[in-house]
Amino acid sequence: MAELLVSLRRDDGAPLHAQLEQELRAAVRSRRLKPGAAMPSTRALAAQLGVSRGVVVEAYEQLAAEGYLAPRAGGVTRVAPQAVASAAQATRAMEPPRPRIDFRPGRPDVSEFPRAAWLRSLRRALNEAPAERFSYWDGSGLPELREALAAYLNRVRGACADAERMVISNGFSQGLALVCAALRSSGARRVAVEDPAHQGSVATIRSAGLSPVGVPVDDDGLRVELLRETRVDAVLVTPAHQYPTGAVLPPHRRAGLVEWARRRGALIIEDDYDAEYRYDREPIGAIHGLAPDRVVYAGSASKTLAPGLRLGWLVVPGHLARAVADAKSAADGGSPALEQLAFADFVVRGELDRHLRRMRPIYRRRRDALLAALGAYLPHLRPTGSAAGLHVLAWLPPGIDEASLLRLAAERSVGIYGLAPHRLAPSDAGGLIFGYGTLSEGAITEGVRLLGSGA
Amino acid sequence: MAELLVSLRRDDGAPLHAQLEQELRAAVRSRRLKPGAAMPSTRALAAQLGVSRGVVVEAYEQLAAEGYLAPRAGGVTRVAPQAVASAAQATRAMEPPRPRIDFRPGRPDVSEFPRAAWLRSLRRALNEAPAERFSYWDGSGLPELREALAAYLNRVRGACADAERMVISNGFSQGLALVCAALRSSGARRVAVEDPAHQGSVATIRSAGLSPVGVPVDDDGLRVELLRETRVDAVLVTPAHQYPTGAVLPPHRRAGLVEWARRRGALIIEDDYDAEYRYDREPIGAIHGLAPDRVVYAGSASKTLAPGLRLGWLVVPGHLARAVADAKSAADGGSPALEQLAFADFVVRGELDRHLRRMRPIYRRRRDALLAALGAYLPHLRPTGSAAGLHVLAWLPPGIDEASLLRLAAERSVGIYGLAPHRLAPSDAGGLIFGYGTLSEGAITEGVRLLGSGA
Repeated sequence: MAELLVSLRRDDGAPLHAQLEQELRAAVRSRRLKPGAAMPSTRALAAQLGVSRGVVVEAYEQLAAEGYLAPRAGGVTRVAPQAVASAAQATRAMEPPRPRIDFRPGRPDVSEFPRAAWLRSLRRALNEAPAERFSYWDGSGLPELREALAAYLNRVRGACADAERMVISNGFSQGLALVCAALRSSGARRVAVEDPAHQGSVATIRSAGLSPVGVPVDDDGLRVELLRETRVDAVLVTPAHQYPTGAVLPPHRRAGLVEWARRRGALIIEDDYDAEYRYDREPIGAIHGLAPDRVVYAGSASKTLAPGLRLGWLVVPGHLARAVADAKSAADGGSPALEQLAFADFVVRGELDRHLRRMRPIYRRRRDALLAALGAYLPHLRPTGSAAGLHVLAWLPPGIDEASLLRLAAERSVGIYGLAPHRLAPSDAGGLIFGYGTLSEGAITEGVRLLGSGA
Repeated sequence: MAELLVSLRRDDGAPLHAQLEQELRAAVRSRRLKPGAAMPSTRALAAQLGVSRGVVVEAYEQLAAEGYLAPRAGGVTRVAPQAVASAAQATRAMEPPRPRIDFRPGRPDVSEFPRAAWLRSLRRALNEAPAERFSYWDGSGLPELREALAAYLNRVRGACADAERMVISNGFSQGLALVCAALRSSGARRVAVEDPAHQGSVATIRSAGLSPVGVPVDDDGLRVELLRETRVDAVLVTPAHQYPTGAVLPPHRRAGLVEWARRRGALIIEDDYDAEYRYDREPIGAIHGLAPDRVVYAGSASKTLAPGLRLGWLVVPGHLARAVADAKSAADGGSPALEQLAFADFVVRGELDRHLRRMRPIYRRRRDALLAALGAYLPHLRPTGSAAGLHVLAWLPPGIDEASLLRLAAERSVGIYGLAPHRLAPSDAGGLIFGYGTLSEGAITEGVRLLGSGA
């Protein structure tokens, strides 16, 4: 039964059923009661208003006669459906058409989300959680999840995490914003970023009042030796799979990065992007394990499970851990409890490992289909960064214009994405980003064929 | 089966089992592998490393002999438990003791959280959601929940909501932060707040770079006639149940508030605090219904269901709706999808109405117990605002010092909360805030008795 906000004035003079009709009529007209909405039963509404049921029956009959309500024999009375299109429908009709084959990067295949296993974890979380977990909680997140993730990251990613220094966030970008807020409060001003880099991360740094400083990337990732000239307080890096070039930072640059951070007293923010998807070699451990006192480790479930979960995490050096947790408290009072508990269960039971083992060969086949199609239909492009992750960057040969290729793709309803928006400093070297996470092998081949047939 | 980050060097000279032992030993020592953590099966680890199973068996046996691992016959091998207390335990031991009877306000009784009904909604959401709901989503939130809440608010709270102008947030305080961010971007500088007000809300306004301006509250809530002198861009009000005085804003002040906002072109931010819990009279509709073009309506599930859900919502006037949704996108990429879908199902099926109908008499009995105990043991206090909500403010008679009463309460392990921290301008009138949401009637009576016996 639903409750309805209606007030009747017993001293009004007008009969109660007439007052009720007037109120309900106005509610339908103003769309406070929406077309199709279920009305309370006459018995329930009478009880709520403290009037006899006859008053409500009479009002409902009158409004049905006027076309406001649609009673059904023996069933629920509803507000009559109307023919007018809602504002929502009008808005949606104006959105641009989505490309038929969309190589948009950074998207995992959410149709493979392990719904049954996730429901089992949710059920256990709901059955077993102490009641206090549903109350307000510290900004760092629930201990169950912090402990589960610390053990997982140490085991799988070679991190050196401790539950006490973890902070749970709503995905990676909030985590980065929290770290930037804490850095800004401690007096930091400049943060080095890879050039090219993820646009969203650069925007997050800027929103926090910090200045991003681009440092060039080559085929081995961030050119660490150039950091010395930047006089920055921190650096954001994607060592596992540089976004968007896909480079993997080699051991000597990792060592150089840590050495630079120690000398300068600077912070390394390690975005462990795509680390879970590695196809041709053994995975490389996180930099965090080398220098947990100088590195913020940042990860999320957005690529491994689903972006819709909005689950991210940070491992923060001791001197910053409290400030980052407080920033999370101030931002939104902490992440939702039940989802944290379910994810803790999911990790502890090995369901995340299992899901990743199932997904890796699926994505590897898509990667292989993409490389084969690029070789066949766009042989003048140079693909890089295909050893890991969910996207490949294909460099354009000199003289081929990125923007005109993107226009051509759009005409053929193929969504590809250029390198230019990710650059901080302008460059002549053009490239196309192919995300293959959400596409079947057939669609990948077809999309590249459509591009190649006129390029 | 779990995965483990271990790398073996086949050209190293040292036997593979010895290399593996060394790696695992280091991992246990450095706590990368935590006490009690499950090890992969020998078969699985051998497959992962590409070595014969005998290598792993030999390494495990050696480490078990050294006390690093604890094998169980026919079961899982685990890292041996250790006797050292973790940093976590040390930290927790240092927290101050919690009062035995805690009248902390703003807490609903989470032990009554409807776990079975929530699980049903989660299950339906997981079974029925289109896969795309698990991907990235617009900052305004999922349409299912925006539509369910708009219909609910219009029906129950007399709001004039439209799904297109709703934004889902992580609880009320994030919602307020988003509105403040949009206001600040549009050039706003000053926001009027009730004095006294919720400290957290004042802090949120300040964090957004806006100046809070206190406007006094009397027994009828915000003194609306004083707004004219403030030259503010917006006002934050709690008309349903002023926090902390519990006043309900009467009709003539509501009308005056709307008139002021229209003349000044200012925004009313309506925190519909405690509107769902009303014990003695019919509920009063939201101000939003009077002027949806000038009012941001803000609500949350923190008091009606549980703070741990971190579910809040805004209805935003058309001219601000896009800016607020974009602020949410920038803050954290949107709220978790599954929780939104579950809550939509919960609202549409009338489960929220049902839960509130079940809780109202429980809270009313606690309220009655509190008023009776105050009358019996602290008769010189003047309780106000008890018609609604989950707390009562008891004014102190002149000459009684708030701070010394709080100290006395702490000595008796009773948690009560003073009015002073909620004030923007200093005042001699002291008061005690008694939250009764989480306490049994017996505990309420006992807590007040303990206070009264020495006051």
